[in-house]
Amino acid sequence: MSRRAARAPRRRPAPPLSRLCCIACGRGHPLLEIRYACEACGDLLEVQHDLERAASGRSAAALKALFQSRVGATSLPHQSGVWRYHELILPDLPPERIVTKPEGNTNLYRSRSLERASGTAAVLIKHEGENPTLSFKDRGMTAGVSFARLVGAETVACASTGDTSASMAAYAAQVEGLRALVVLPAGKVSLEQLSQPVASGCLTVCLPTDFDGCLRLLREVCRTRPLYLLNSVNPIRIEGQKSIAFEVLQQLGWEPPDWMVVPVGNAGNISAIGKGLIELRALGVIDRLPRLLGVQAAAAAPLAAASRDGYASRVRVRAGETAAAAIRIGDPVSYDKAVRVVRESHGGFEAVDEEEILDAKALVDQSGVYICPNSAAAVAGFLKWRARGEIAARDRVVIVATAHGCKYSQVTIDYHSDRLPGVRPRRANRIIEVAAEARAIERLLEEGSGTR
Amino acid sequence: MSRRAARAPRRRPAPPLSRLCCIACGRGHPLLEIRYACEACGDLLEVQHDLERAASGRSAAALKALFQSRVGATSLPHQSGVWRYHELILPDLPPERIVTKPEGNTNLYRSRSLERASGTAAVLIKHEGENPTLSFKDRGMTAGVSFARLVGAETVACASTGDTSASMAAYAAQVEGLRALVVLPAGKVSLEQLSQPVASGCLTVCLPTDFDGCLRLLREVCRTRPLYLLNSVNPIRIEGQKSIAFEVLQQLGWEPPDWMVVPVGNAGNISAIGKGLIELRALGVIDRLPRLLGVQAAAAAPLAAASRDGYASRVRVRAGETAAAAIRIGDPVSYDKAVRVVRESHGGFEAVDEEEILDAKALVDQSGVYICPNSAAAVAGFLKWRARGEIAARDRVVIVATAHGCKYSQVTIDYHSDRLPGVRPRRANRIIEVAAEARAIERLLEEGSGTR
Repeated sequence: MSRRAARAPRRRPAPPLSRLCCIACGRGHPLLEIRYACEACGDLLEVQHDLERAASGRSAAALKALFQSRVGATSLPHQSGVWRYHELILPDLPPERIVTKPEGNTNLYRSRSLERASGTAAVLIKHEGENPTLSFKDRGMTAGVSFARLVGAETVACASTGDTSASMAAYAAQVEGLRALVVLPAGKVSLEQLSQPVASGCLTVCLPTDFDGCLRLLREVCRTRPLYLLNSVNPIRIEGQKSIAFEVLQQLGWEPPDWMVVPVGNAGNISAIGKGLIELRALGVIDRLPRLLGVQAAAAAPLAAASRDGYASRVRVRAGETAAAAIRIGDPVSYDKAVRVVRESHGGFEAVDEEEILDAKALVDQSGVYICPNSAAAVAGFLKWRARGEIAARDRVVIVATAHGCKYSQVTIDYHSDRLPGVRPRRANRIIEVAAEARAIERLLEEGSGTR
Repeated sequence: MSRRAARAPRRRPAPPLSRLCCIACGRGHPLLEIRYACEACGDLLEVQHDLERAASGRSAAALKALFQSRVGATSLPHQSGVWRYHELILPDLPPERIVTKPEGNTNLYRSRSLERASGTAAVLIKHEGENPTLSFKDRGMTAGVSFARLVGAETVACASTGDTSASMAAYAAQVEGLRALVVLPAGKVSLEQLSQPVASGCLTVCLPTDFDGCLRLLREVCRTRPLYLLNSVNPIRIEGQKSIAFEVLQQLGWEPPDWMVVPVGNAGNISAIGKGLIELRALGVIDRLPRLLGVQAAAAAPLAAASRDGYASRVRVRAGETAAAAIRIGDPVSYDKAVRVVRESHGGFEAVDEEEILDAKALVDQSGVYICPNSAAAVAGFLKWRARGEIAARDRVVIVATAHGCKYSQVTIDYHSDRLPGVRPRRANRIIEVAAEARAIERLLEEGSGTR
């Protein structure tokens, strides 16, 4: 037999299922290029999938059945609430290259107290604080760190208001030989958030500037050093994050709610959720989009400001102080992506002040679901739009809680002890110190202390 | 037709599937009696099930199939990692009376770094810090608070080193009209743990004494007030907690590991895990018990001391200071139960000092799995027994991590900043503060800072 005949016939490799695509000029780039901005115009990139091929031509019903068959999977990666939807996340990523805890599979709590307080038919809280590092960031990081390993990165890096760095550090720690650098605004992240990258053994640097300053500096370092940047400018992370939308929809039997309410800082999360929903609609898995409400702290509300004049101009602000420190961002990276999906869904943006945020937090916390102040901003925004009638009494509303209350215990205690300047707590539950005597406790029981 | 004929034939109600039973004299009491001690001899009570009837006579294979069919259930209560095993937890409790988040379904992490550090075939960490209130206590509380509601309790109460109160408060908050009282040793619980019952709106009282003092006082109040006590003296909670053992075994395909290592404070958890394992063996679901190793902080190690002379005497100590504050208990309530199950499993107890605890914590944390100091005590105990050869190189070991690292961030930061008196950190990862200049960050990258 000749050598030629012995060879298997040469098969042309299937073209990639995904590419990077500029959101402004539409120019395409290969997915495997490490790139955070369009080569031609410098604008943001997003991952674009050939959805039909990625889904292997499955019907909507077949896709739903596929995803349902994986609920409660006992092996990786389908056990993860992100990789259960592997075909729609990063279809070309080989399963054995995935770095996962696993993550996702978070509870969707029915909130009777918000239903009662607002007079709304159904209010549910998707508690992303129940992820392994206690925030929604784990969904993006399993994608981002998997990809970093795939492209052979030696060091991953991010600037952070606290949750991103905690997550990146914990996922990087799972990968032999992968170094990690986090850059934080000194004194602006909570004790809990600071402890996380330190615990994970990652190079943890605090700078005397704010988040926007940290990110600017890190991007400067990226130009001269081979760092793989895992901020939300990274389009791969968005793909993991959009699984929040997939999981909520699956938990609701693929029946879209009327609204999804999301706290907005850098605007990556609302962009991801919007992208996920639009893809589900394109595949026929859902027939309409929930309306998206993005909520910002009044101290850092460029998108809420822009929405008031129909997004006529790009607004940038200098972020002021807020208890919702994770969304304390004046110049959101994913601004344009967020505006696009919010408009597409006929939604909007809102700003809420410190008292609204903290009273909303106390209301939800007192139902036994402990959330962070950033999540509480979304709750406060929901209450405001419901009070104004933009959200109707018959509506079904899902609020995305992005992190666990235990990551922000100081502000919780300060609120209940009435120690936050400029905030008059309406739902304070004071800690009581008494002598170690049975009689003292009996007296408190008689007085009916406590807020419940 | 006569009235008598019209009536359905009177059916004798089935006898209850469970009762309370004294662990010393064996005297039985009805399950629905609110009772924490034996009427005859005053000793501890435990729940005893008619296992054969509770399992409806199913074979071991049929039970495994039943539990497997519920993994990934999308409806309550079987969605819970506790109530998936409803028949073996509280079989007479009607499903609609269950108060659940749901809880459980926590990750079982393969720990390559512990395998390498110790030269052991397989080391897995069951991370109970991934429960809704970030500790294993949620498994007991879903049982305890459900039962409190069933018996019509108006107020639930507990003394706590932090995790019990957080959990009880969050579950009580789910029940309309149920009041909750927690009693804490002032200055001895972490900021995060203190914030949790306060957030849940529960009456939160701090006393100038230690945990043992808090519990003594609360039991005194219980004699005159109708409080439903949810400390681990409560036998119902133990029934929920034993689901840790069930879930671990199910995750391992019902193949028992050689060892299960558990941190021990009040000794309720190791008692619960042991009880669960013994019941699985009685039902033929497993054919042998894993050996149980209970680990205490040297500052509060009565059981480790007692084990040295074959448990000849009941040891009580005055608990000293330890970073493992949740197991800072000198007179464990479940002492006798713990000794019984540990002996039955041919296991043992060990004590570990502060440096061992905190270095072990850093080792696990740096693998991206963030644990509390109490869990780290178990890790340190494992390392000690492995070094001594009591645990063999070929063994498969499961370590139970009881709470999330984020509940103890101050001690994590203090360790890495070398600020803990008497502790010389071997794995410190210093937080670095530099000027906001790209050059400063570049220099750190060149130096190779960080511990990974």
